[in-house]
Amino acid sequence: MADQKSPHDLPDVTGLSVAVLGGTGDQGRGLARRFALAGHEVVLGSRSAERARAAAEELGADLAVRGLDNAGAAAEADVVVVAVPWEGHRELLVSLAAPLAGKIVVDCVNPLGFDKKGAYALPVEEGSAAQQAEAVLPESRVVAAFHHVSAVVLLDPEVDRVDLDVLVLGDDREAADTVRALAGRISGVRGIYGGRLRNAHQVEAFTANLISINRRYKAHAGLRITDV
Amino acid sequence: MADQKSPHDLPDVTGLSVAVLGGTGDQGRGLARRFALAGHEVVLGSRSAERARAAAEELGADLAVRGLDNAGAAAEADVVVVAVPWEGHRELLVSLAAPLAGKIVVDCVNPLGFDKKGAYALPVEEGSAAQQAEAVLPESRVVAAFHHVSAVVLLDPEVDRVDLDVLVLGDDREAADTVRALAGRISGVRGIYGGRLRNAHQVEAFTANLISINRRYKAHAGLRITDV
Repeated sequence: MADQKSPHDLPDVTGLSVAVLGGTGDQGRGLARRFALAGHEVVLGSRSAERARAAAEELGADLAVRGLDNAGAAAEADVVVVAVPWEGHRELLVSLAAPLAGKIVVDCVNPLGFDKKGAYALPVEEGSAAQQAEAVLPESRVVAAFHHVSAVVLLDPEVDRVDLDVLVLGDDREAADTVRALAGRISGVRGIYGGRLRNAHQVEAFTANLISINRRYKAHAGLRITDV
Repeated sequence: MADQKSPHDLPDVTGLSVAVLGGTGDQGRGLARRFALAGHEVVLGSRSAERARAAAEELGADLAVRGLDNAGAAAEADVVVVAVPWEGHRELLVSLAAPLAGKIVVDCVNPLGFDKKGAYALPVEEGSAAQQAEAVLPESRVVAAFHHVSAVVLLDPEVDRVDLDVLVLGDDREAADTVRALAGRISGVRGIYGGRLRNAHQVEAFTANLISINRRYKAHAGLRITDV
């Protein structure tokens, strides 16, 4: 057993640069803020470089966050987080296949619909947003993570410790471990391996349940995995 | 706000009797044991009344657990937990529609497949096992819960407190609250409202992720909901 690596041993990701596509949205800004607070250089990507710059500035002059258009952001960073709306997800990724080649792409998109009864999971031809990313980015190392983070909590300056585990799914173990380590750079968060990409659908869809929980309990609910 | 009921206020379920169909399986016996420890009268149901009686006896003479065939068990109890294998789920429930009419039926079945890469979610025509139960039991009050409990933990005499939240889904609020209260009778467990039945699929399917987590971390993983 001595030569077996513990599942809790993770690579050192200090100095890794992070891009957040869809970085002007709440979830994107929230993640960018937390990665920057942890000492990472962060690039927000948006369709409009100008809006990306404005969103980066709003996060505060003390944080190393810049804004670029999505293609520029994708080209600049070591790890690229995809936090765009589900509508347009496929088209954006198809258009960025070249700058994303060889990179770790972290999909955190939740394909959800909303009606008067609340949120529900949308069917996805490929099975999940993450599997769609994998299908259209065959040269990238696709990992799924950060589905359940509350943008409100991430952006709240009063919240020092974020009380949740980030489930990280992927078939490329080294890439998944890197993303787990990156999740762990957010104070309070653990990056927990959550299975292969073929089991990403239910993790994305579970966001609909968290929305129901938030409504019932007036909370910003998250998950912790017990016995791990 | 004073007249608004807290989402944590639950009915008193002391004295409620519970049947567990598929009660000779590990999950069924584990749930039966914990409900009996909490003071409930429990009836194990099985295709064979004799096997049900043997399983009930094995749980120990100090516990109020009996064994009957599935139809007998369904007829006897106030709340009926369905813990049968996915294969045969529909047929069993169709055959029990009469004794289950008017009762709270708690579906905890996870439609999963297994191959050399581990567990994965099976497609279900109705969307989920719980929605299938609802479709074939129109006279029953169907709730989904107890998907993620570890049979090993439930059966372990060394485990006094079970460290997880049970997600309870349903469109009948009173029935869901009763099942939440019943979950809370297991020491350590909270019954947390988890959304409508149309969002049950991902909760059932998430069991595949927990199996992946268990393999990676050599754990009996469960969920806790934070900020609730």
